[in-house]
Amino acid sequence: MELFTHEYFMNEALKQAKFGFEEGEIPVGAVIVSNNRVIAKAYNQTEKLQDVTAHAEMLAITSAENTLGAKYLTDCKMYVTLEPCHMCAGALFWSQISELHFAASDEKRGYRELSPKALHPKTKVFSGTLAQESQKLLNDFFSKLRK
Amino acid sequence: MELFTHEYFMNEALKQAKFGFEEGEIPVGAVIVSNNRVIAKAYNQTEKLQDVTAHAEMLAITSAENTLGAKYLTDCKMYVTLEPCHMCAGALFWSQISELHFAASDEKRGYRELSPKALHPKTKVFSGTLAQESQKLLNDFFSKLRK
Repeated sequence: MELFTHEYFMNEALKQAKFGFEEGEIPVGAVIVSNNRVIAKAYNQTEKLQDVTAHAEMLAITSAENTLGAKYLTDCKMYVTLEPCHMCAGALFWSQISELHFAASDEKRGYRELSPKALHPKTKVFSGTLAQESQKLLNDFFSKLRK
Repeated sequence: MELFTHEYFMNEALKQAKFGFEEGEIPVGAVIVSNNRVIAKAYNQTEKLQDVTAHAEMLAITSAENTLGAKYLTDCKMYVTLEPCHMCAGALFWSQISELHFAASDEKRGYRELSPKALHPKTKVFSGTLAQESQKLLNDFFSKLRK
């Protein structure tokens, strides 16, 4: 029996996204996993911090690197509820992360729109786990915002 | 008489890069200018912080946004001694910065290599001011490193 599935970890990222939702942030959450253990978790805080660099992925990368005391994440996996933008893809590139799992796709601002080569060639990419749930949370956020 | 020239501000960025050099960091420095006043300055600290996101540009953006209490830098200019990578270009994109001035070009890791569209369409780009001085500092750093 495999306790730790991709869905388990993506659900941890989704929990983070929901914290963001509650605080009025665009709800995107991320966790970083090493040896089946979550070593960092974060949600988007661009509004609270008034800082465009405070995407969930960026905060999670900094946090994971602090935890490991190392700037490379070569044995780590990121689970994030939305396809990273090219800033975050750039940070993932520098970290040489082993795997990137994203839930929903971002047709407009996702890194693939700019260049699929934005990630490190060593990074394996997976997508779609909990995509509907992640997308629904984003849709709910934006329809609430428009009201 | 124009007191504040592009060279003046790029030289401020170069001073930052030199602080990085002294601390064993890849010597890249950045400043952000608003109304002819330097509101943020930073140098690369990826080694000290063991954090791949700690490029000079990222630290300067966060610092400027903290100073202004706003997440957009629409009336600001960045001066940086090296062409930004695509992570930093992504952060500059989100900040909607008015002008980007970079000194030396980065053929290998510069954002233009990945996609010249990485910056916001509103951002005006200028390059070449103090390029030789900035490149020399980088060359000195890497030749010292190889010894």
